[in-house]
Amino acid sequence: MLVRVDLIVSLDGFATTTDQTPDNPFGEDWSRLVGAYVATKTFQERVLHDTSGQGTTGLDDAYAKDYFENIGAEIMGAGKFGLHNYPDDPNWKGWWGDEPPFHCPVFVLTNTPRPSLEMSGGTTFHFITANPVEALKLAVEAANGKDVRIGGGPTMVRDYLKARLVDYLHVAVTPILLGGGVRLWDDLRGLEAGYKVTSETAESGTIHITFQR
Amino acid sequence: MLVRVDLIVSLDGFATTTDQTPDNPFGEDWSRLVGAYVATKTFQERVLHDTSGQGTTGLDDAYAKDYFENIGAEIMGAGKFGLHNYPDDPNWKGWWGDEPPFHCPVFVLTNTPRPSLEMSGGTTFHFITANPVEALKLAVEAANGKDVRIGGGPTMVRDYLKARLVDYLHVAVTPILLGGGVRLWDDLRGLEAGYKVTSETAESGTIHITFQR
Repeated sequence: MLVRVDLIVSLDGFATTTDQTPDNPFGEDWSRLVGAYVATKTFQERVLHDTSGQGTTGLDDAYAKDYFENIGAEIMGAGKFGLHNYPDDPNWKGWWGDEPPFHCPVFVLTNTPRPSLEMSGGTTFHFITANPVEALKLAVEAANGKDVRIGGGPTMVRDYLKARLVDYLHVAVTPILLGGGVRLWDDLRGLEAGYKVTSETAESGTIHITFQR
Repeated sequence: MLVRVDLIVSLDGFATTTDQTPDNPFGEDWSRLVGAYVATKTFQERVLHDTSGQGTTGLDDAYAKDYFENIGAEIMGAGKFGLHNYPDDPNWKGWWGDEPPFHCPVFVLTNTPRPSLEMSGGTTFHFITANPVEALKLAVEAANGKDVRIGGGPTMVRDYLKARLVDYLHVAVTPILLGGGVRLWDDLRGLEAGYKVTSETAESGTIHITFQR
């Protein structure tokens, strides 16, 4: 059982973007930040339910495939689920449609719990108030021997990294500069101790870095 | 004639370290940050004057070799020359001994000019008060058709990057986290526009990123 993180950051280390507008709620920068991942065959199939076989099949896709392997539970922040965008909508069910790509229990950390949401395809969202360690205990139990993903956002990921609770960290660095946002690499001096660090560059220009215990 | 930059940063983007002590004026972190570069055959020969042939000869060394190719003049900040460490010593001649590895005119930007220093091997340090564009004009003239290096520190490099005066940027990313220092990637949103960006990873784990016009 591994605790794992997969995150996409810009070359200047930002995991979130700042150019959102009402007309473009994710922003242009977001499209550029995650473009190589969205272009993979795996993302097209697993997240967009496009089974026409289109999408890239190189190194980015290999990491995308790995992303979905052997995950038994996920922990995510309220922001990633969308509770900061839709705090007053009790019917908000996340960004991922009726069949979210998780296919496992997902623990959403929030100070304002709501009833659990059972979705198609095996995903159930549980809304809990818990510190990182408490949430991890719940997720490990729910994962039943499989891996647990710390899904983000970056502030939550940093909490788990600082507590040295992460066994496998995969960071995809998109070679663009965003100039602002939430940094992944903040106050993490010496994180590399106890990890083997590897990196390789995909055809898209994305640099894939892994920290493995 | 190209204006070029070569810089080493940590994975969290810091080009300087913070753990200096009187006994260890560069700090442990500095040794780890620049270790792969110092280990190259080229650094051993060109900077340490060790001609015994020891040192690495892989990708790190290829970039190190390239670092010393075709440079006709360098611009550096007062801090890189050591004027912040030795402000009151009129005989301070830099960190590099009697035969510095530059072998060309070096323009040191400072608010307190001093007489030029002619060293062995063709290096002359000129101490000038100038803004980035003025300094570049002087350096281009002195370089006589060869390339001009913006030698750093990182704050000066950022000034030139922001002004879009850099033709070739090589950043060696050492896979360690420093947690503090001066960031290279600060306030540079969209820098990649107009550049071709490449990256590759050396045996040492160093990720070499280049921006080329």
